[in-house]
Amino acid sequence: MRQKLSVITLGVKDFNRSLEFYQKGLGWKPSSASGEEIAFFPMGGVVFALYPREKLAEDATVDPRGSGFSGMTLAYNAKNQAEVDEVLRTVQALGAKIVKPAQKVFWGGYSGYFADPDGYLWEVAWNPDWAFDEHDNPVLP
Amino acid sequence: MRQKLSVITLGVKDFNRSLEFYQKGLGWKPSSASGEEIAFFPMGGVVFALYPREKLAEDATVDPRGSGFSGMTLAYNAKNQAEVDEVLRTVQALGAKIVKPAQKVFWGGYSGYFADPDGYLWEVAWNPDWAFDEHDNPVLP
Repeated sequence: MRQKLSVITLGVKDFNRSLEFYQKGLGWKPSSASGEEIAFFPMGGVVFALYPREKLAEDATVDPRGSGFSGMTLAYNAKNQAEVDEVLRTVQALGAKIVKPAQKVFWGGYSGYFADPDGYLWEVAWNPDWAFDEHDNPVLP
Repeated sequence: MRQKLSVITLGVKDFNRSLEFYQKGLGWKPSSASGEEIAFFPMGGVVFALYPREKLAEDATVDPRGSGFSGMTLAYNAKNQAEVDEVLRTVQALGAKIVKPAQKVFWGGYSGYFADPDGYLWEVAWNPDWAFDEHDNPVLP
């Protein structure tokens, strides 16, 4: 198994509500490979997908029930502290819940968390020690 | 908020067990930016991270409890059907549970699912309609 992660899919309760947030609200552009109930957002390497939760569980042949902390978080690395603040203001205006207001954190950066319409957690972080390539992807040593 | 996803972090119950699976078992190489309880695996764009579940919840200031389907899936796109079979054999030999054996699926591809040591679901898929760049990242229309 090569060191690759191609797609991350969020199982969403209300597909149109999620599109309203990610596509219309944030202005993200889905691939034309998207369908009526599947949205693929190319993120500059990995693909971020939305699919109805019940169907995702059905595809994986697992019980769709689940509650509490999903155990996974997504992170968006901002270019500076001001962008962290700006992103959190943007998503809050779109109705997202700010779970942790932006603040200086123990590892030397500045970060906050918001919950998307299904409660999935996004960290919005500025990390002074990380470098990024021309596609804004992290380049780690 | 730019159309970017920098990091996906799995909150894991036993950090060493997860390293045993992903680093030693699969042979993935962590970045030297990793620490004693945080592992960063550069995936050719996005970074895949492992961090103790309780600490991840603490960082996000949420209750760490959660059960059942996490609602999110990760996908690894293989180059052909044979690689799908090979990957599932590899992870099974490492103790992962095969949740859905590889099979032809309704969208025209060939795919199966396994659960990692914490139960996080990975789809291993071959999609005849997707193209990939020189870094093996999906290139969608």
